[in-house]
Amino acid sequence: MTDGDFGRDYLQHRIDREFALALHIGIVVESADDAAVVLSAPLAPNANHQGTAFGGSLYSVAVLAGWAWVTRYLAARNLSADGVIQESTIRFLKPVQGALRASAAAPPGLEIDKFRKMLQRAGRGRISLQVDIEYNQSAAALFHGVFAAAVRQ
Amino acid sequence: MTDGDFGRDYLQHRIDREFALALHIGIVVESADDAAVVLSAPLAPNANHQGTAFGGSLYSVAVLAGWAWVTRYLAARNLSADGVIQESTIRFLKPVQGALRASAAAPPGLEIDKFRKMLQRAGRGRISLQVDIEYNQSAAALFHGVFAAAVRQ
Repeated sequence: MTDGDFGRDYLQHRIDREFALALHIGIVVESADDAAVVLSAPLAPNANHQGTAFGGSLYSVAVLAGWAWVTRYLAARNLSADGVIQESTIRFLKPVQGALRASAAAPPGLEIDKFRKMLQRAGRGRISLQVDIEYNQSAAALFHGVFAAAVRQ
Repeated sequence: MTDGDFGRDYLQHRIDREFALALHIGIVVESADDAAVVLSAPLAPNANHQGTAFGGSLYSVAVLAGWAWVTRYLAARNLSADGVIQESTIRFLKPVQGALRASAAAPPGLEIDKFRKMLQRAGRGRISLQVDIEYNQSAAALFHGVFAAAVRQ
């Protein structure tokens, strides 16, 4: 198995198939590797009347970036489980006046190990992810979410 | 001026006009009075493949309920200002398997007074709002957001 097996095309397909709203938001999986999953969406369908990105759209792109990271992790380990968001915070730092772009970074290795062990031992686990929304080469919003996964019996 | 001046129709018009994604989510302003602003959206356009509401859609309905409360408050006082979300948390308690429904309650009177005085004195203010998402007569998600408003010069 290579990274490519659960990379951009795989995640794009899953997002388009599993989330009705993703097509309207215009979610594009930009890249997906061990370091990060990056999603984007065009401004037009997500704009408010001031020409900046709607907070609900920014949240959606961020939470899907986190979901995609978890989904890739589970799929690459052949774990039949779905990630779901449990709780999250998002801080908006400056308006986004162009494409929405969210990057979910891999958490520290120790956190990933803990998540994997919980899934193996108890069939369920939780993991915290940070997702950065950048615009014009600086942080525009910061998302932090806790995702849960339960292995299907 | 009566409540009706900045009630359901007014907020529905503003949401539809000002947020491109609102039509795809299917936002409906159910009611708007001094006690609360209630929005809903049908499940179908917001569903994930498990037949439950997407977290990004629930967030969007909640943040628009809070925005609508602020917008109604400002409009009713003839304040030429826009509310924007600054930061928020959302906790998902149980899946929503039907219509999405979010209720933004009026904050305590003292908080509203503080917001009004900040707007009058400094031309800008912040207010915290709680928005409850209910499904099947119990809480399905809890949203808390801080909204800022600045009077246009």
